[in-house]
Amino acid sequence: MSNDLAIDITDIEAAADRLAGEAIETPIIRNKQLDALLGARVMIKPEILQHGGAFKYRGAYNRLSQLTADEKTRGVVAFSSGNHAQGVALAAARVGCPALIVMPSDSPRIKVDNTRKYGAEIRFFDRYSEDREAIAAEIAAERGCVVVPSYDDRHIIAGQGTVGLELMLQARRLPGAMPDLVLCPVGGGGLISGLSTAVKADLPDAQIWGVEPAGFDDTRRSLISGRREGNDPAARSFCDALQSPTPGALTFPIMQRNLAGVLAVTDAEVSEAIRYAFNTLKLVVEPGGCVALAALLAGRLEVKGRTVAIVLSGGNIDPELHARIMAGEA
Amino acid sequence: MSNDLAIDITDIEAAADRLAGEAIETPIIRNKQLDALLGARVMIKPEILQHGGAFKYRGAYNRLSQLTADEKTRGVVAFSSGNHAQGVALAAARVGCPALIVMPSDSPRIKVDNTRKYGAEIRFFDRYSEDREAIAAEIAAERGCVVVPSYDDRHIIAGQGTVGLELMLQARRLPGAMPDLVLCPVGGGGLISGLSTAVKADLPDAQIWGVEPAGFDDTRRSLISGRREGNDPAARSFCDALQSPTPGALTFPIMQRNLAGVLAVTDAEVSEAIRYAFNTLKLVVEPGGCVALAALLAGRLEVKGRTVAIVLSGGNIDPELHARIMAGEA
Repeated sequence: MSNDLAIDITDIEAAADRLAGEAIETPIIRNKQLDALLGARVMIKPEILQHGGAFKYRGAYNRLSQLTADEKTRGVVAFSSGNHAQGVALAAARVGCPALIVMPSDSPRIKVDNTRKYGAEIRFFDRYSEDREAIAAEIAAERGCVVVPSYDDRHIIAGQGTVGLELMLQARRLPGAMPDLVLCPVGGGGLISGLSTAVKADLPDAQIWGVEPAGFDDTRRSLISGRREGNDPAARSFCDALQSPTPGALTFPIMQRNLAGVLAVTDAEVSEAIRYAFNTLKLVVEPGGCVALAALLAGRLEVKGRTVAIVLSGGNIDPELHARIMAGEA
Repeated sequence: MSNDLAIDITDIEAAADRLAGEAIETPIIRNKQLDALLGARVMIKPEILQHGGAFKYRGAYNRLSQLTADEKTRGVVAFSSGNHAQGVALAAARVGCPALIVMPSDSPRIKVDNTRKYGAEIRFFDRYSEDREAIAAEIAAERGCVVVPSYDDRHIIAGQGTVGLELMLQARRLPGAMPDLVLCPVGGGGLISGLSTAVKADLPDAQIWGVEPAGFDDTRRSLISGRREGNDPAARSFCDALQSPTPGALTFPIMQRNLAGVLAVTDAEVSEAIRYAFNTLKLVVEPGGCVALAALLAGRLEVKGRTVAIVLSGGNIDPELHARIMAGEA
């Protein structure tokens, strides 16, 4: 298959070969109560169980495992609110190269601590006043190291796409599990671009829906307007993982081709989903990782009688915030 | 295979047939950080993902699916600190029979609420001053209904044994995953009796270790003395699911035959394991469900270089207690 998009299914299959035995094949989780509540069959893909607690290891390892010996020596730089940071740090440790991560100064503590623990060097920046891409590019120029973007890179997109490839392979092994709809969190669009490419290659009629936090629904508005829109600089959300400024240059055309649409959920709806995940699913999910479940629980789509797959994309949440959410204080 | 024990592997295989498509086949979860920390390969069997948030549905459904039409009409009674309660309530709803559950008045709220939500009637008793078995027997006599014991019943033991059967089938599909050691929580011994029967039938040399809360280590002491010991009435633990008074009449001989030994862990060690499960595994585990992980993290066994399977047997914990544990206050 050849087209004008950054990746196709063969890139994802190649990534899956690189990741075999290296990334966790996350299971599909079913829950009878959730099915009963929604009147649907829900297949949960818990990337919270991936190395580093989020899907990001897939793309990072796919990229870093292709570095030349010389590039490995010089190392990599990445900018990330935390999950890509941890994925790159772990992948760098695995392939044996130094990693410098540029992180917002308000990143969740668990993400900063883990990134450091996994062996990366960290440089902080202010999420609202500094340009993270410019900082990373400057560092890359200084040090001569490779920039590992968090979504706008074909190797990253292909790596994240293995979530979708795995989902399809797993669904084929279960009776009646092929999804009519797939809901997936959207930040810069790396995950959903790869995932939707894999799902559509197998099931062209599946509806793929993105989910964004209210206030950071740049992709939702961009798909409507047909051009890459930004967000109101005054917008705030506790979904720290999904606050990318605009859809990516590479991910946007893929999302334009593959998505049925994008939904937006409020922080309050996300909190409700985090509580549901804790009490009923027994899973720890961070705000940005929980938006697809939030959209389902908030009734954003009619799913009665359908088979629905959702991605829980990350589980790195500070215990203090989690406790406040559980207590209904956030 | 014939012997003088309550069940053998064929009972578990028959239970697995009854449970096929009915219980969740819980996945095996791996975590690289946990492996690195222990220098071992750890296979986690998360029964927190089972219907009702604990393994108990397996035994309950295995028993209740064998009720006669007449028995179903009269209903069932069970005594339980909460997980068996939920398992019986769910299985009763599934097979269509009324259920009355006798629960300690200090049961976690989440367990009481869920048991009621699943459709069972509840009667409370005082854990420390009343005899739950006598209460249940009296109710059974009054109403002419079937008592569903929480562990000392061959159908219950066989049903819980499907955890071990599944573990073996899953381990066979993974390279190098056959366990050298298995660690499993012990209350009355229903789960570990069934599980160890299944594991030993496949892997006679596997070491099966029970884990109990300190102060409720009746099985540990009973295996040493050779007779069924009780616990100090003054003992207290927040592992509400593991406070059975003595090993069962049926489970004790099975444990005598199958177990390498039993370990005891303190509430503080269990708290540490609950924090680890949240932060690193992204799983919600209740105190009694987390004792096997606690024993590993506390270094109770030498596991370096070994393949170790552990059961996380339940995830029904009140959010308030969880928050206090995460904050280091419990």
